[in-house]
Amino acid sequence: MNQEHVQIRDVSLRDGLQIEDPIPLSAKLELLAAVAATGVREMEATAFVSPSKVPALADAPDLATHLQEYRDSHGIEFSALVASPNGAKRAIAAGLSSIEYVVSAADGHSRANVGRTAAEATALIPEIISIAHDSGASVEVIVATTWDCPFDGPTPHQRVVDVMTTALSSEVDRLAIADTIGTATPRRVTETIEALRPLVDEIPLGAHFHNTRGAGLASAYAAVTAGVTRLDASVGGLGGCPFAPGASGNIATEDLVYLLRDSGIGVDVDLDAAIEAARVAQRLVGHDLPSALLRAGDRILN
Amino acid sequence: MNQEHVQIRDVSLRDGLQIEDPIPLSAKLELLAAVAATGVREMEATAFVSPSKVPALADAPDLATHLQEYRDSHGIEFSALVASPNGAKRAIAAGLSSIEYVVSAADGHSRANVGRTAAEATALIPEIISIAHDSGASVEVIVATTWDCPFDGPTPHQRVVDVMTTALSSEVDRLAIADTIGTATPRRVTETIEALRPLVDEIPLGAHFHNTRGAGLASAYAAVTAGVTRLDASVGGLGGCPFAPGASGNIATEDLVYLLRDSGIGVDVDLDAAIEAARVAQRLVGHDLPSALLRAGDRILN
Repeated sequence: MNQEHVQIRDVSLRDGLQIEDPIPLSAKLELLAAVAATGVREMEATAFVSPSKVPALADAPDLATHLQEYRDSHGIEFSALVASPNGAKRAIAAGLSSIEYVVSAADGHSRANVGRTAAEATALIPEIISIAHDSGASVEVIVATTWDCPFDGPTPHQRVVDVMTTALSSEVDRLAIADTIGTATPRRVTETIEALRPLVDEIPLGAHFHNTRGAGLASAYAAVTAGVTRLDASVGGLGGCPFAPGASGNIATEDLVYLLRDSGIGVDVDLDAAIEAARVAQRLVGHDLPSALLRAGDRILN
Repeated sequence: MNQEHVQIRDVSLRDGLQIEDPIPLSAKLELLAAVAATGVREMEATAFVSPSKVPALADAPDLATHLQEYRDSHGIEFSALVASPNGAKRAIAAGLSSIEYVVSAADGHSRANVGRTAAEATALIPEIISIAHDSGASVEVIVATTWDCPFDGPTPHQRVVDVMTTALSSEVDRLAIADTIGTATPRRVTETIEALRPLVDEIPLGAHFHNTRGAGLASAYAAVTAGVTRLDASVGGLGGCPFAPGASGNIATEDLVYLLRDSGIGVDVDLDAAIEAARVAQRLVGHDLPSALLRAGDRILN
């Protein structure tokens, strides 16, 4: 492994809150301030999707008006998730300059998520990239269900390649692989990344894991070992999986920071501040979060 | 990585129950039956230590009378932990043929645990091995606080080597490294095992992790990648850490089985049976256990 630094993108405000009962904008701003205080350089702020499908993020345009002050004061880059060209237009109109377009590689999840096959969703990539690039915004295409689909089972690798090939031919800025339902394991992660390496050699590759089956951090570390330099995480491990009620959601920012720091890999996120942000998140959503560090605290470093 | 098989030792009945409120022998036998049904080949059954210090395991001699039927019917090898020559004698008198002697590499933890310095505890190794070997029993020396001590901070590597060198010169049968307070991370694990390899090349090396800071499975996988073929785990992740109330304890057998299986590594433990045993454990101790698979279940394998 050659990585000396891993870029953590905190996704607490989007993936973390997405399936929670909606919390007021004022509460989101409190969480935003707490996450910003960790030193993190990138945050996924919200999604411009159907308010009726994702009521917890219906305030996306309002939230977006509060991001500029953190760009100015903290130098944070904010991104928003979109699921269509129209969503991309709305995100850009709201001032976002970094767009994530999620495409499920598996038809079952793609249909359930956006009412389109994987091929139909992939076909929208050029238009979304064009909309963004015309406005000076960058686009990351995130391949959901890279390893498994809750409906179709294991995802054939070629489906991941197909999404990425279209994205690359449209000059996508970044790519990412997502373990949408938290089933990935280290060797599967390593194999996928090694197989993708020739394809994605020129642009940054990120990875997004859920800790649903306990292997989230092990998979994230395998991804870093295989060359990934960008990882998503949420404070407290906010973000349960709708397919497994009560299960852990995203990998916890503070647990990831602990693991990377003590593995000799640099991150921008301060561990104590991340634990504090997790505490804020736990209070705001009103239930226990699955983070380990939130309970155990840092180790003694004397 | 060359491992095709990892030997899991289930430690639910000892390390898992050690800090729980004592449960009746009948409940332990129910848990024993559930764990035995997983197919696991090795179990840490109990400890022969001071009943006043560890009341939850005060029934060790009584429990030991029930092990023979599982040796006969399931071919399971049972071990017991001891902390002194007298404990080794008691374990052997009770019919155990596999002894674990735990030595803390750090003085702070060693004093708190057994009232001896690391050097004093190490000096007892030859006598304990002699007692065991004279009765045809095998001995595993487990080096506690291999990475960090809750009192002394990071453990100098030479302290681990010192314990092992004494054990090896007394013809110990197996060695193990234990992350007693759940602070290890993958790169530290890899470095330790690589540094120990010349020393332990001739005999089996096991590893024991706690998931206290979320990195337990990642560290276990790093250990396997570095050549370890024996791992401890407990169903449900039973076994909280007394230094971090509410935090995860041992790595969960079922989470470990899931990770290894889907990483292409063979284990003797059936995943569904391990989840069922975790459910039994949760009912018997009367509180939620931290296992991920207990909540999320297996992935779809179609």
